[in-house]
Amino acid sequence: MSKKLTTRAEDYSKWYNELVVKADLAENSAVRGCMVIKPYGYAIWEKMQAELDRMFKETGHQNAYFPLFVPKSLFEAEEKNAEGFAKECAIVTHYRLQADPDKPGKLRVDPEAKLEEELIVRPTSEAIIWNTYRNWIQSYRDLPILINQWANVVRWEMRTRLFLRTAEFLWQEGHTAHETKAEAITEAKLMNNVYATFAENFMAIPVIQGVKTESERFAGAEETFCIEALMQDGKALQAGTSHFLGQNFAKAFDVKFANKEGKQDYVWATSWGVSTRLMGALIMTHSDDFGLVLPPSLAPNQVVIVPIYKNEADLEAISKVAHTIASDLKKKGISVKYDDRDTQRPGAKFAQHELQGVPLRIAIGPKDLENGTVELARRDTLTKDIVSLDSLIPTIEGLLKDIQQALFDKALLYRDTHITEVNTFEEFKAVLETKAGFISAHWDGTNETEAKIKELTKATIRCIPLETSNEEGVCVFSGLPSKRRVLFAKAY
Amino acid sequence: MSKKLTTRAEDYSKWYNELVVKADLAENSAVRGCMVIKPYGYAIWEKMQAELDRMFKETGHQNAYFPLFVPKSLFEAEEKNAEGFAKECAIVTHYRLQADPDKPGKLRVDPEAKLEEELIVRPTSEAIIWNTYRNWIQSYRDLPILINQWANVVRWEMRTRLFLRTAEFLWQEGHTAHETKAEAITEAKLMNNVYATFAENFMAIPVIQGVKTESERFAGAEETFCIEALMQDGKALQAGTSHFLGQNFAKAFDVKFANKEGKQDYVWATSWGVSTRLMGALIMTHSDDFGLVLPPSLAPNQVVIVPIYKNEADLEAISKVAHTIASDLKKKGISVKYDDRDTQRPGAKFAQHELQGVPLRIAIGPKDLENGTVELARRDTLTKDIVSLDSLIPTIEGLLKDIQQALFDKALLYRDTHITEVNTFEEFKAVLETKAGFISAHWDGTNETEAKIKELTKATIRCIPLETSNEEGVCVFSGLPSKRRVLFAKAY
Repeated sequence: MSKKLTTRAEDYSKWYNELVVKADLAENSAVRGCMVIKPYGYAIWEKMQAELDRMFKETGHQNAYFPLFVPKSLFEAEEKNAEGFAKECAIVTHYRLQADPDKPGKLRVDPEAKLEEELIVRPTSEAIIWNTYRNWIQSYRDLPILINQWANVVRWEMRTRLFLRTAEFLWQEGHTAHETKAEAITEAKLMNNVYATFAENFMAIPVIQGVKTESERFAGAEETFCIEALMQDGKALQAGTSHFLGQNFAKAFDVKFANKEGKQDYVWATSWGVSTRLMGALIMTHSDDFGLVLPPSLAPNQVVIVPIYKNEADLEAISKVAHTIASDLKKKGISVKYDDRDTQRPGAKFAQHELQGVPLRIAIGPKDLENGTVELARRDTLTKDIVSLDSLIPTIEGLLKDIQQALFDKALLYRDTHITEVNTFEEFKAVLETKAGFISAHWDGTNETEAKIKELTKATIRCIPLETSNEEGVCVFSGLPSKRRVLFAKAY
Repeated sequence: MSKKLTTRAEDYSKWYNELVVKADLAENSAVRGCMVIKPYGYAIWEKMQAELDRMFKETGHQNAYFPLFVPKSLFEAEEKNAEGFAKECAIVTHYRLQADPDKPGKLRVDPEAKLEEELIVRPTSEAIIWNTYRNWIQSYRDLPILINQWANVVRWEMRTRLFLRTAEFLWQEGHTAHETKAEAITEAKLMNNVYATFAENFMAIPVIQGVKTESERFAGAEETFCIEALMQDGKALQAGTSHFLGQNFAKAFDVKFANKEGKQDYVWATSWGVSTRLMGALIMTHSDDFGLVLPPSLAPNQVVIVPIYKNEADLEAISKVAHTIASDLKKKGISVKYDDRDTQRPGAKFAQHELQGVPLRIAIGPKDLENGTVELARRDTLTKDIVSLDSLIPTIEGLLKDIQQALFDKALLYRDTHITEVNTFEEFKAVLETKAGFISAHWDGTNETEAKIKELTKATIRCIPLETSNEEGVCVFSGLPSKRRVLFAKAY
């Protein structure tokens, strides 16, 4: 098996797929569209989970768990939501297999074991959760409810890609219930902000916060807030969404409460989620032709130590130093792996750790022992230095911070130089073809124009940025008046 | 709603169900047999997860994630496993809903969207995982594979009970692959031992380690190790199992490797799991007629502070002290909640925290402020003491350790006094009816005798204990020779 990746310039999409598989992040399974998340990929996801979970709890949320299945009658209760997901639902219709009378040793679905009501494998859990909340909420004293769940969901997508779009994926979904519209909107914005902070500070991915247009909104939402990131091929990726659901689900599931004046009112809702799709964003934001590049905060091993030796005596002496370094790093809360496998040569180990994005690599050979030094290589810049053992630990501490910041800065520079203001549809198309990235353009606010632009260019409105200056102008497509620019892009 | 629980003596089963619901641990959902795990219950499960996950990683395991669905052709490949689970499988047959032409606003399964091959919602993941391992394993260098997954599984049980037996439940399942039979057996035993250590040290639940008889073995296993606990009604509960799977799955999925001599051999396997069923074990081991009793290591809040006040000035002064105590406790790593809700009276708060099993409760009133004391109540013994503020923190630290140990000791005493040796079938039946618990008896080793005893008494062989002295005897039922005693019990 060739270890070399297809380069991004050669074939970006192929580069991505190869990287995911060769860096041991994930692979396709025997189930159409479903992936296997391998230990190395899962370890990165666990780091995301831990940090998000901490942030959710810090903002007052608790975890809970709701059923995998949604009875059809509940699923269809909120009509827009049901309509939005109906075409991509896995449906359980039977509950038993039996020996196949025609094929010895094989099984078949027992036709007698048909469910009275079909069960939908949750594509999202608003329906089952709001049906539950009805029994939890009587008065304003029961509000707010601030709950999150970590779960798997299934959306029967026809075209799937590892992490980016899979039939089953892992995510978290927050579902909150509030007394007032204002409080629910505040919550939806707060959680979108949590996502933005997480993406930028932890994943080193710059994002733009905005709201979706009506046609791009979550099915059943009144407003969808989002964070949008830009990948290295100039395509946008929606990295997280937070929805203000109004009273839609409360009305569909009859969830009322007695307010402070003693009057019955419907409850206000939000929901918000990020998924294993973030792994795709991570990969496509930072990685290069040599493989994955990981921000230190997400690296299962922040440092790897590779011994360079000719004989057992060398290895023994090197191992002693390596163990001391490892132990000193661990004391500082830095994760480190001593890679003393005797089944691989140093060159192969270097290539593997490069492919897997380990931020810092220490190599120690007999010469280093003599000199009291090590070779320290930085994954993001692919540069090496000779560092004295005396200053190694503080150097590493500093570098890990630098790398985290450098990755963000690099991605931010790319993103910011790939937001192009255009004022004519010719420009719009030209930029999309030659430079890609976000296109900042005036839009007349109609679904028709949005749909037409999508049809002609495949670009969609990624968001109406929250931070934007009001600027009068005319729609790039229709010439009708517009009050502000929105961001278009081709997207994942 | 009456706050009082049915007592254990009145109706044990009703006591359990009421406790689960009233202590806010879980409730039934709109989906037959599926539960909602509420935030308080889920917080306890999270503590179990965190500790188990730590123990798995410490023993060299990594987490990964495999698909929810198993194509029928893979599911049926290992015949015994398939046969064991065929009767309780949720089966996905379709992937799309459509508008129901007969019922406006309603949906129906789109008959055009039938899957070519049905998908089984995993009842356990050996099939999908071993089908994946085939591609991961070529040589002995690829072994061992030591993987765990945290997941939901579905077994379409006809009679369900919250936590104890639900159609969907949460669990972890370890799946390991090894070069040799001996190594796989060692792994299976190791993980059973991890479960035993976890149950005893963390959950304060004494368990007996043993092996299952052939008829009670996991479908597809060569040997099933288990930990068996005893509930307060004298019924046993299987709290965890670890299976030596031999080469059964390797053969079914053609997973071979080149061994050190360069010969092809089938890989040896184990799998092991514990589930949200442990919540049931936790509840039924320690709790009393006032509600849940939690070992401090599993308590979401180890200490709760309740202010007793008549006016705002009192509350303000009490709150100052309470915040200092809370902050001091947190510094010691003790979780604490200051319950200053103004919607509840102290009596109601006391009852709630008792019901929810908070190990220690501090009450502070104006008198206490004068005296520099607090009232400290212990949930397990329901005793109270006046404690000086000066010695409060060390007192609490000591008490939390004491409670953890006291709960284990109490459960151990109950368990040990409920293992009864019997030598005749009359005795066997009498003990089962009057005293219950484990019955230690000789058995002739045949499936027939085991089945007959089960039919006549509903007692099953819970395990052949690992620690047992060889003792010649005659089977309590057939009179045939036996080499050791085994443990019978009625079981959950």
